[in-house]
Amino acid sequence: MANLTVKRNERIHWGDCDPAGIIYYPNYFEMFDRCTTSMLEQAIGMNKRDYLIAYDFSGHPCVQTRGRFLLPTRFGDDVVVESTIANIGRSSFEVHHRLTKDGKLAVEGSETRVWVRRQSADSKSIKAHPIPDEVVARLGGR
Amino acid sequence: MANLTVKRNERIHWGDCDPAGIIYYPNYFEMFDRCTTSMLEQAIGMNKRDYLIAYDFSGHPCVQTRGRFLLPTRFGDDVVVESTIANIGRSSFEVHHRLTKDGKLAVEGSETRVWVRRQSADSKSIKAHPIPDEVVARLGGR
Amino acid sequence: MANLTVKRNERIHWGDCDPAGIIYYPNYFEMFDRCTTSMLEQAIGMNKRDYLIAYDFSGHPCVQTRGRFLLPTRFGDDVVVESTIANIGRSSFEVHHRLTKDGKLAVEGSETRVWVRRQSADSKSIKAHPIPDEVVARLGGR
Amino acid sequence: MANLTVKRNERIHWGDCDPAGIIYYPNYFEMFDRCTTSMLEQAIGMNKRDYLIAYDFSGHPCVQTRGRFLLPTRFGDDVVVESTIANIGRSSFEVHHRLTKDGKLAVEGSETRVWVRRQSADSKSIKAHPIPDEVVARLGGR
Repeated sequence: MANLTVKRNERIHWGDCDPAGIIYYPNYFEMFDRCTTSMLEQAIGMNKRDYLIAYDFSGHPCVQTRGRFLLPTRFGDDVVVESTIANIGRSSFEVHHRLTKDGKLAVEGSETRVWVRRQSADSKSIKAHPIPDEVVARLGGR
Repeated sequence: MANLTVKRNERIHWGDCDPAGIIYYPNYFEMFDRCTTSMLEQAIGMNKRDYLIAYDFSGHPCVQTRGRFLLPTRFGDDVVVESTIANIGRSSFEVHHRLTKDGKLAVEGSETRVWVRRQSADSKSIKAHPIPDEVVARLGGR
Repeated sequence: MANLTVKRNERIHWGDCDPAGIIYYPNYFEMFDRCTTSMLEQAIGMNKRDYLIAYDFSGHPCVQTRGRFLLPTRFGDDVVVESTIANIGRSSFEVHHRLTKDGKLAVEGSETRVWVRRQSADSKSIKAHPIPDEVVARLGGR
Repeated sequence: MANLTVKRNERIHWGDCDPAGIIYYPNYFEMFDRCTTSMLEQAIGMNKRDYLIAYDFSGHPCVQTRGRFLLPTRFGDDVVVESTIANIGRSSFEVHHRLTKDGKLAVEGSETRVWVRRQSADSKSIKAHPIPDEVVARLGGR
């Protein structure tokens, strides 16, 4: 089985950078989040608002993440993030992200996401829920 | 040698949370960054603006990080982050963060930071530089 | 009638600042938002999570705002924001914010907020709703 | 003289939204900032990093802004921001922003920006500086 991979272009903006002139690193995780959402949107063929409704769930919060920042990026840099489904479990999946600048690896990291539902209609509590088979298939299967 | 440990209180704000009502996870890394700065400020006895000048360096960017999010936090939650120096190398150091809510571990993570200087006075490029002995001592030594 | 006024201390952090070394201005509006919430929390005597439930509403989104940035602030600056209820209408209220650094006015601005409810239990649409009399009284009356 | 106008597409992301499911309003000002930079980049024909060097200045911080939020936007919304130079003074300029969703005006606001330089090479203090004639011409003149 080929793993699903999507590419996303991102520009590093002035407001993403800190007084050292390089990206403030938490912003890489916002990028990772946009990439994971974008991957799901492409795989499922709906935007996030619609796929939350279609599959009746609350989201796919991140329960574990890591990142290595190998080369600094600066405002004005155009980068490419390649995101790949690395693993799909019963109610969780893992995404690997590789961010390149001018073809050189600048950042690599991963996120483990859990498919969650509210405990009940009027509850704020969420709990893990099996990823629908259809979504598993679209993400490249187990 | 006892490892340096500092505690910091943080409030989860409305604007830190996403449509699922829980914290948007990149914000935990902003918290980690504030905690690491706060630790250095306490250890060195100056705020960051002053210690950057006193030791003539550009900052301590993060080159590696990871986090595990065990319990969700929501706006209105008051949490405590306990940060500990886990390792000090020649030009890098590692900080462990443990975030608790009502005494329960909600997040744990770490950051590896590198002490950097500009290559030259008019350069934007930065490179690793040995951490001054005085700072090493204040952070709890090697 | 005396207008309700609350003060809040804020620290400008490294991650709030841009490559020019000064605060990235949208962060002032995050500060304003925290101040308005803090004011309501103090006036009502509950945190936001609880007062949303107690008065069964969805929030108080901002419909209009402005700010003037008179003096730059930098990471390490400790500032004070004084927030005052300037006007209370049927379903909206206005808050003025004055941010000082070392006693000097650095920023002044305002927000107009609307008290909103969902159109119906399962709707995502929100609409203006009269502010409860009890809240009006606690905010200093009309 | 025709005023310079540029359009920019923006997507509202999950992480831009708050627990009410709508955009957290300070994020509109990050959008305004990206639009103003984008406008200057197009007018000058360089990215911001390059034009700061080419004209030897520190940036164009915002000294005054305002916004009116007429319709809520939500994650998944694709919006268009039309930005227009409204006024150019000796060392400041004003930009108007109109954000539309499905052709309907959702937000309108403005920013007043000042062209600044450091007081001296090793100073952190900045002061207003005349906008170069060439830039004034490219922005549509006075």
